[in-house]
Amino acid sequence: MLPELLTPALAWETSGMRITVLAGGVGGARFLRGLKAAAPDAEITVIGNTGDDITLFGLHVSPDLDSIMYTLGGGISEEQGWGRADETFTVLSELAAYGTGPGWFSLGDRDFATHIARTSMLNAGQPLSAVTSRLCERWRPGVRLLPMSDDQVQTQVVISEDGQPRTVHFQEWWVRLHAAVPARQIIAAGADQARPAPGVLDAIAAADIVLLPPSNPVVSVGIILSVPAIAAALDAKLVVGVSPIIAGAPVRGMADACLAAIGVQTTAAAVAAHYGSQLLGGWLVDEKDADAVGAPELAGIAVRAVPLYMSDLQASADIARSALALAGELCQ
Amino acid sequence: MLPELLTPALAWETSGMRITVLAGGVGGARFLRGLKAAAPDAEITVIGNTGDDITLFGLHVSPDLDSIMYTLGGGISEEQGWGRADETFTVLSELAAYGTGPGWFSLGDRDFATHIARTSMLNAGQPLSAVTSRLCERWRPGVRLLPMSDDQVQTQVVISEDGQPRTVHFQEWWVRLHAAVPARQIIAAGADQARPAPGVLDAIAAADIVLLPPSNPVVSVGIILSVPAIAAALDAKLVVGVSPIIAGAPVRGMADACLAAIGVQTTAAAVAAHYGSQLLGGWLVDEKDADAVGAPELAGIAVRAVPLYMSDLQASADIARSALALAGELCQ
Repeated sequence: MLPELLTPALAWETSGMRITVLAGGVGGARFLRGLKAAAPDAEITVIGNTGDDITLFGLHVSPDLDSIMYTLGGGISEEQGWGRADETFTVLSELAAYGTGPGWFSLGDRDFATHIARTSMLNAGQPLSAVTSRLCERWRPGVRLLPMSDDQVQTQVVISEDGQPRTVHFQEWWVRLHAAVPARQIIAAGADQARPAPGVLDAIAAADIVLLPPSNPVVSVGIILSVPAIAAALDAKLVVGVSPIIAGAPVRGMADACLAAIGVQTTAAAVAAHYGSQLLGGWLVDEKDADAVGAPELAGIAVRAVPLYMSDLQASADIARSALALAGELCQ
Repeated sequence: MLPELLTPALAWETSGMRITVLAGGVGGARFLRGLKAAAPDAEITVIGNTGDDITLFGLHVSPDLDSIMYTLGGGISEEQGWGRADETFTVLSELAAYGTGPGWFSLGDRDFATHIARTSMLNAGQPLSAVTSRLCERWRPGVRLLPMSDDQVQTQVVISEDGQPRTVHFQEWWVRLHAAVPARQIIAAGADQARPAPGVLDAIAAADIVLLPPSNPVVSVGIILSVPAIAAALDAKLVVGVSPIIAGAPVRGMADACLAAIGVQTTAAAVAAHYGSQLLGGWLVDEKDADAVGAPELAGIAVRAVPLYMSDLQASADIARSALALAGELCQ
């Protein structure tokens, strides 16, 4: 059967609803902006991916947490989807003059201040969750933003170099190599020992709905799910996901390169099957993929097709409304 | 007797001469610029004060080393005498938006890069001397710049607050309180245990002349001398100093407030007596102070009067030439 086409009208009351979202960076942040517009009175908790975190110039950079914080707080560079608006690059060019740093990671002056503040608090002994909360006091993102863990989990990519495997930090593969070198394997180093940050398990337990935005299923949502206690806590919950793949291609970023590394096809159906019916109760795909869904591997997952391009806030809010509507339907 | 008035002509050959200078920040840096002009082929080693060093925003700031490095490397703000030329303050204003930091210490974006690079290397386990050498690879100051010690020595000031003594970091007294609150005591915390940085004792032992620029005798030169092995090594050397006091007032900064704390009058003669004839072989005073020198407490110290205002490079070079000429005279 073909999936039903949803209208974005929301039939149920979201005021006071507790929504927990597992989010990566840019895509997650834009979805969250739409979700806030769609459910302005909901209590939204975001569990952010920290596997991308990297130490640059001795400073702790949390790209995904910052993309969410800046996007929801009004400080994001809209063109990039990451980093600050109205950036200047004085510090970075001075550091280059000293010959320090990797040279392939761009950080603006405004962004540097965030990393300086974060690192200073971390070095003073505060956990990342407390530091994130402190930084959010400035940005007031309108959601409760939690790192998935205060323990270090590092996303690493095994690539081939001269026929030999070499393990690099995710950012090196993603930013320096543009994910153009095939990934043999993607590893969430430290995840098996990582405990969820304070508030994470409570936010999952208390959630009326858990949403997966159209974030990268491997290196964003996948890394969050690699924390055992988080994956276990989700078993009991209603989870609705939004496909990051439209018509066989990632909407943004290089999810196809990540999916290839884990042997999953770049299709909305394959990603849903990868998440699996034990996790996913509902799955939103783009209208373009309406024909392709309903395949056997989607058995047990309710699929709906809607326009999935987050071209503007209105479009993102419509997608969020559709996800909430599907969840509402599944609750009945 | 009145001191002889020197002409700045230099009678002896400075090429290949080994000159070691104990220097604070702004005054030391300007004197060094003059010294380089006066003796362009000398081997100049600078032992810099690190008692002013402070951790701000989790970053290690070395104000005196930086003033020297920037001044001799052509990056200094000439108006201020410290910090970088063409500065912007984006990072600092962002940090203020986060509500972090002391709020009374100004750091520009270019300057921040230095502190980020320094802190990153220190946290990687490199000693301050190696880090300073690395930073100087960029600035090429034309002197060998050594921190007095790789061990932490912190200049602290005991002030009175509500009748009770309170110990503050030197920078808090100097920058936040503008040295307007009387200092009961000035402490070089950690100095008694501090070892000279690698190269410091060799530079003193090998020196043909040791010079004291018109730096603050208490919180700049005094702190360097508080490292026991440095003071001991100087006993055997020809040391010529330049008075930082002209006509009963500090030329720059608030040396009078520091001298008051240790019970020394703000006069060129009193500062020479404070250094003492065991340390000082020669002492340059300003022409205005010609009448006042030759007093008994200057017994054993050769005193000469010359114009001491470092109004421009030419004036600074003339002072340096006079110091070298006096040293030459004392060598004969």
